[in-house]
Amino acid sequence: MASIEVDGRIALIDVGLTFPDAEHFGIDLILPDWRRLRERPDGVHCAVITHGHEDHMGALPFFLREFPSVPVYGTKLTLALIAAKLEEHPDITPDLREVEAGERLQTGPFDIEFVGVTHSIPDGMAVAFHTPHGVVLHSGDFKLDQTPIDGRPTDLPHLAQLGDAGVTLLLADSTNAETPGHVPSESRIGRTLREVFEGAQGRLIVTTFASHVHRVQQVIDASVEAGRKVCFVGRSMARNMPIARDIGYLHYDDGDVVELEEVTGTDRERVVIICTGSQGEPYAALSLMAAGQHRQISLQEGDTVVMASSVIPGNESAIYRTINGLYRQGAQVVHRGIADVHVSGHAAADELKFFHNIVRASAFVPVHGEYRHLLAHARIARETGTPPDQVLVCEDGDTVILANGRVRKGERFEPGRVYVDGLGVGDVGNAVLRERGKLSEEGICVAVVQTDQHSRIIDEPRVFQQGVIYEREQGDLLDEAAKVLREALDAAGHGDGDPAAVRRTVSSALGRYWHDRTGRRPVILPILVEV
Amino acid sequence: MASIEVDGRIALIDVGLTFPDAEHFGIDLILPDWRRLRERPDGVHCAVITHGHEDHMGALPFFLREFPSVPVYGTKLTLALIAAKLEEHPDITPDLREVEAGERLQTGPFDIEFVGVTHSIPDGMAVAFHTPHGVVLHSGDFKLDQTPIDGRPTDLPHLAQLGDAGVTLLLADSTNAETPGHVPSESRIGRTLREVFEGAQGRLIVTTFASHVHRVQQVIDASVEAGRKVCFVGRSMARNMPIARDIGYLHYDDGDVVELEEVTGTDRERVVIICTGSQGEPYAALSLMAAGQHRQISLQEGDTVVMASSVIPGNESAIYRTINGLYRQGAQVVHRGIADVHVSGHAAADELKFFHNIVRASAFVPVHGEYRHLLAHARIARETGTPPDQVLVCEDGDTVILANGRVRKGERFEPGRVYVDGLGVGDVGNAVLRERGKLSEEGICVAVVQTDQHSRIIDEPRVFQQGVIYEREQGDLLDEAAKVLREALDAAGHGDGDPAAVRRTVSSALGRYWHDRTGRRPVILPILVEV
Repeated sequence: MASIEVDGRIALIDVGLTFPDAEHFGIDLILPDWRRLRERPDGVHCAVITHGHEDHMGALPFFLREFPSVPVYGTKLTLALIAAKLEEHPDITPDLREVEAGERLQTGPFDIEFVGVTHSIPDGMAVAFHTPHGVVLHSGDFKLDQTPIDGRPTDLPHLAQLGDAGVTLLLADSTNAETPGHVPSESRIGRTLREVFEGAQGRLIVTTFASHVHRVQQVIDASVEAGRKVCFVGRSMARNMPIARDIGYLHYDDGDVVELEEVTGTDRERVVIICTGSQGEPYAALSLMAAGQHRQISLQEGDTVVMASSVIPGNESAIYRTINGLYRQGAQVVHRGIADVHVSGHAAADELKFFHNIVRASAFVPVHGEYRHLLAHARIARETGTPPDQVLVCEDGDTVILANGRVRKGERFEPGRVYVDGLGVGDVGNAVLRERGKLSEEGICVAVVQTDQHSRIIDEPRVFQQGVIYEREQGDLLDEAAKVLREALDAAGHGDGDPAAVRRTVSSALGRYWHDRTGRRPVILPILVEV
Repeated sequence: MASIEVDGRIALIDVGLTFPDAEHFGIDLILPDWRRLRERPDGVHCAVITHGHEDHMGALPFFLREFPSVPVYGTKLTLALIAAKLEEHPDITPDLREVEAGERLQTGPFDIEFVGVTHSIPDGMAVAFHTPHGVVLHSGDFKLDQTPIDGRPTDLPHLAQLGDAGVTLLLADSTNAETPGHVPSESRIGRTLREVFEGAQGRLIVTTFASHVHRVQQVIDASVEAGRKVCFVGRSMARNMPIARDIGYLHYDDGDVVELEEVTGTDRERVVIICTGSQGEPYAALSLMAAGQHRQISLQEGDTVVMASSVIPGNESAIYRTINGLYRQGAQVVHRGIADVHVSGHAAADELKFFHNIVRASAFVPVHGEYRHLLAHARIARETGTPPDQVLVCEDGDTVILANGRVRKGERFEPGRVYVDGLGVGDVGNAVLRERGKLSEEGICVAVVQTDQHSRIIDEPRVFQQGVIYEREQGDLLDEAAKVLREALDAAGHGDGDPAAVRRTVSSALGRYWHDRTGRRPVILPILVEV
C-alpha cells in the first residue's frame, strides 16, 4: 500500500494484504495498518488498484468497511474480481469506477494517467500522477513480455512519451531485481503444455493460480487442440474463469467445458481438469486429490498432473507433500523443476534496465520486494543513470517529499501490520503471538492452589498440562510435579498471605521441575482459588 | 538408516538423524525408530557410516547409548567427526574402527568392500556387501565430480570391477534424480571466490557448511592468494577445521589463520571470516552478524558476505531474513541466486545414468530422497537397463529379500520416528504435537469451577487464557466468558453431582462463546476444584 498526497488529499495505490507465514500462529490474514489514514478520514480521496491480485486489492473489504465512501479505480477485470470478492461482504456497497489503460483522469487535485502493463494477471496498469511538482509514476507489478497472450505488452511507447515529457519520480516493482536476464514469454508455456498433452494418456490435471487468466487460456487452447474438454475445479477457479470470460478476457466455447459432476462420466482421455492447489493449500482441490480425498476426482496410474505455477517461498514443504502424494496416487507430475511450465510475472534485472532507460526518471524509489530486492533495484537505477542521491531505498513507514523536481526522505512514522484472526481484526498482536509461540514449543502447565481468604494454602495443589508430556504414559510426572510444588510452597511459608508471592513460588518451582525432568520450559499458569 | 541381514546378523548402513520442520513444534531432533533392533540386541553386528554428515551419523550418540558394544566402521575423517561429536557424551565409549576406501573386510558373516566416492564432505564411501546370494552395493551419498578438490573422484574403475564381477542389488542416492544434467565441479566455486575476493574492499565473510572441507579449502586458498588471513568463526566451524587439518584433509599454514580475538585488530582488507550460519540458524555466527549482535564482529559499508551454500528446503525465510539483515548492515551479499557459489553434493540425473551403466546391477532400490526423487531414480534405472520388475521403490518400513540373485519385497513393518525434545527421547509423539499445534493456532482457555464434594457448584467459575486474546485490552471478554459459563452451568443444573457432565458443559459453553465472539477455537481445559 502506497499513498500519494497532493494539496492535503490522499490517493492510495493498492490496498493489498499479506498472507501469514509459520511465525504468525493462527493468523488468517495480515492487513496494512491504516491508523494514519484513520486520523484524517476526510483526507482519503480515492484508491487506485493496479491489478486484481490479493496482495494489491485483498484488504479492500476491511478498508471499505472503515472508509465506505472512498471510490476505487481500476480496469475492467480488476474491478470484476474486486466485485466478486465483495459479494461475500454484502454490508459493503463499493463505489467502483472503471478506467482504461491509456486514459487520463482528473479527480480532486489528482491528474492521473493509466498505462497498460503486462503481468501474471491481465489488465494490469502503471499509474502516473501529474502533480505541481512533477510526474510521479508507479509501475504496479509488471514485466516486459514482448509476446504476451493477449497481444497487449507493457505500453513502452506510452512510457516513452511520459519520459519525453519528464518523469520526476519513479516507483517500480523490485520483485525480480536480483534475478539476472529476462523473464521468458508466457507463450513459451503453451508449447510445453502441448508437448505434455500430446503424449498424455489418462486424465490430465493442471493447476495454476486462479487469477492467471492467460495461463488458463493456454491450458484451454492446448486441451481443445488435444481433443479434450476442460473442467474448472476449486472455488476460486470455478468463480473467476466465468467472470473473466463474461467480460472478454478468456475465450472458450460452451462445448469445451464440462461440469465437475460430469467428469466421472467422461472418458479419462477426453478431459483436462484445471484446478486450485498449486501452493499445497490444505483444502484446495489438488491437495485433496493428492491425499486421495477429493469427492469427485480420483487419480490413477497413467494420469498426469502439471503444476503450472511457482513455488511461493514458505510453501515448499506443502507443495512437495502434494507432489509426493500425487506420485503415490500413481500420477506423473510435471512441475517447474523439470519442465518449462511456469514463468514469473515480474520483470527481471535486464528488463528493469529497459524500463528505466525508457522512463528516464530523475528520482527513483524501488518498491515491492524484500530489502535485498530493493537494494538490487536501486543499483540498477544508478547503473541506468538515476543520480545516486535521487535513489531512495525506503521501507514501510518511510515518507518521501517531492518538491521542485527533487526528492528527499520526509518524517518517518511507525508502520504497523494488522492481524486478522477469526472475527478479530487487530486484536491479536505480537504479545499474543509470542504466547502462542511459547505454547507451541513447550506447552503449558496449569497449577491450581487453594487458599483461604488470607492467601494461606489449605489443600494439596493440583497440576495440569497440555502439550508438555504425553499424559497417558507419563502421568506420574504430573503427580510428582504436584508433590514438588507442595514442598516448594511449604518451604516458602505459603506466601504468608501474599498471592503474588505464592504465584512466584509456583512459577519458579514448576519451571525448575519441568526443566530438570524434561529439559522443557512450558508456560506456567498459577491459579489461586480462594475458598 | 538401512540395514542388511546375513545369517541372522545385522549390519547397519548409517545411523543418521533428521532435523525438525515447522510441524514439529518444539522438537529438537528426529531419530530413526530402532525398536526392531531392540528386539534383537545381540543380532546387531556392526554399523558402517558412509560419511560424516549429521543425517548419516548424527543419531550415533543415542544409538550407542543403547547398543554400546556395536563397532562403528568408517573412514578416517568420518570417524574423527564422530569422535568429536561423542566428546560431548562422555558416558559413551565407542568402538570406532577405521577403514579405507578400496579395502575389503571380513567381519562375522559380512564380507564388505569399501569404494571411495565424492560428496560435499571428503572421505565418503560406497559399501559393497558380498553375500551368498550376490553383491549388494549401497552408494552412500555421492556425485561424479571429475575434478574434485582432493583429486579423489568417485572410484568408477573400482565400481566397474564390481560390475564386471556382478552386482546383484544396487541401492543408490536419489536426492537429485529429478534434476537434469550434471552437477558442475566443486572447483568452479574457487574461480568465483577468486573473482569476488579480487574486487572486494573491506571485510570478507564467507559462510558454508561446517563439514564442507573442500569448500573451506577453496576459501582458504583464495584468501591466501588475495593476501588475506582466515578466521574460523562459529562453534562447529572452529571445531571441525582443525580436526580436518590435523588428519590431513585440509591444508593451511599457521600463519594464514588469525584467532577471533585478533580479528578486530586486523585490517579489514586483510581478513576473511569463514563462519557458520548459512541456513539462517537463529544463534549461528552469521545470523548474529546480520542482526548486529555478534560480540566480536560487526559489519560495515563495503564489507562483502559470500553465502557459499545451498538453501535447504524449509529454511528459505530464515536465510532471506539473514540476507536482508546483512544488507541493512551495509554489506554486499553474494549468494547462489546471483553467482556460482554453490554446487550440490549429489549426482544429478545424467550422472546417475553413468553410475548405473558402470555398475550394471541386476536389481535396484532407490534410496535417499522424497518419494518423487525415488520414482525419478527408478525411472533412470529402468532407462539404463535394469529389468522393471527388479526395480523396487521402497519406503521406510519396507524390507527387501534377495535370494538366488533376484529381489522381492518382504514383510513390511510399521516404521517410526523418535522425537528428541529436551531431555526426552521418544516421550513426545504425535498426540503431544497435535496438542502443541492446537495451542499454537488458537491458544488455551482454562476454567476453574469450585464444587462441593457432591460436585455441586458453589462459587462463581473463573476463566483464564493464554494466546487467545490480548488480555490487557480485552479483559472484559474474559469476564463475559465467566458470566456466560455461569449461566450455562445454571441452565445445565450444575451437573447434578456428575463431574464429567460439568466438564462437558464447561467445554461446550466456552467453546461456543469463544467461537461466537472471536471466531477462534481455543483448547478448553475445565478444572473442577472440590472444596
